[in-house]
Amino acid sequence: MTTIPVVKHILDANEQLAAANRAAFAQAGVLALNLMASPGAGKTSVILATADRLPPAIRLAVIEGDLASTIDADTIAARGLPVVQINTGGGCHLDANMLAAALPSLPVGQFNLLLVENVGNLVCPANFALGTHLNVVIGSIAEGHDKPYKYPGMYAAADVVLLNKADLIDVFEFDLDYFQRGVTMVNASAPLFVMSCKTGAGVAAWVEWLQDAWHNATR
Amino acid sequence: MTTIPVVKHILDANEQLAAANRAAFAQAGVLALNLMASPGAGKTSVILATADRLPPAIRLAVIEGDLASTIDADTIAARGLPVVQINTGGGCHLDANMLAAALPSLPVGQFNLLLVENVGNLVCPANFALGTHLNVVIGSIAEGHDKPYKYPGMYAAADVVLLNKADLIDVFEFDLDYFQRGVTMVNASAPLFVMSCKTGAGVAAWVEWLQDAWHNATR
Repeated sequence: MTTIPVVKHILDANEQLAAANRAAFAQAGVLALNLMASPGAGKTSVILATADRLPPAIRLAVIEGDLASTIDADTIAARGLPVVQINTGGGCHLDANMLAAALPSLPVGQFNLLLVENVGNLVCPANFALGTHLNVVIGSIAEGHDKPYKYPGMYAAADVVLLNKADLIDVFEFDLDYFQRGVTMVNASAPLFVMSCKTGAGVAAWVEWLQDAWHNATR
Repeated sequence: MTTIPVVKHILDANEQLAAANRAAFAQAGVLALNLMASPGAGKTSVILATADRLPPAIRLAVIEGDLASTIDADTIAARGLPVVQINTGGGCHLDANMLAAALPSLPVGQFNLLLVENVGNLVCPANFALGTHLNVVIGSIAEGHDKPYKYPGMYAAADVVLLNKADLIDVFEFDLDYFQRGVTMVNASAPLFVMSCKTGAGVAAWVEWLQDAWHNATR
């Protein structure tokens, strides 16, 4: 019987490139996070709200992933942060090779925290390692409380879950308890931070968690 | 030189299955629509709002696509509509084979309009023909006005664009003119219907368009 192990080879190659990225981060003393969410959940807003609250010792750089456009990178650059835009040209997720190609465009030695905004997609990005250290899954009140049940693979991949647009919890009749039970069902360990990047409510608790993660990773 | 045309063969096979589905629809006198959107944009809400406004001559059936859960099919069934749930088990889009497998579970001869709710994903579903006749792309005010620029492939694939959650246009400071220009940039022909499934505003105009499409296809 003939076997066609093409998919496995591709994933193996991605894992090897991811390991190389992780080694590069270790050498540079960088903690790297992979931000994943639906389109419009607020990934860029989370990056900006986080940047506003980081202490001076933590120096942020950003990689923006989109099928097309430089809208998000332009927004990040306007805040004075080092940023690289990756356009996948239609691809539904980033991969380790794309990240490896983007890294040399960032000012090595001048940052120690990297936030990678993946393509807006609650499915595919969870299946491709980038070499980042932590997966951040960002849900949105506006997309409804049933998403952990419908997209279990993404929520299972999270090291931490942020729930954005909390200022609209009443407008959308969002059942926070139902959402939390869904997250716990597929992921018993990921902490959940409910926040609004618009009002700033809840952002500080997430940034405190991030600072702890950064200190643990880089000390 | 060795060529490896695996991807082309897979797409060819999908196209053949899509053609078979289209032939089955023609024989049964069914107009079939493929509803695509981000997670939480309101695909199920659009189906329910549409069902409420169809004349008795148009008899609706529904296919629900999700990675996991029967949440949406349960909602549709509770309204007394014939419905089949497809769980892709992690797959990021429906394909023609999944649709072919689901069709025998619907009551043939008892419906003449089929709405297929694809997996919530603004990228991959646009690349796989199902054998449906029209692509409906549903945007949401809550996901932001830049989505046609960031996800051009999906908006380019649309035969008609619905923009849902219009009751929140002020809350999200949504720039409708910018959104419209983005749609037109990638898709000069698709009509746009701005609506709110919550308030019902704008739904009638879309249903009128759908009725015209149904009459043209089935007369």
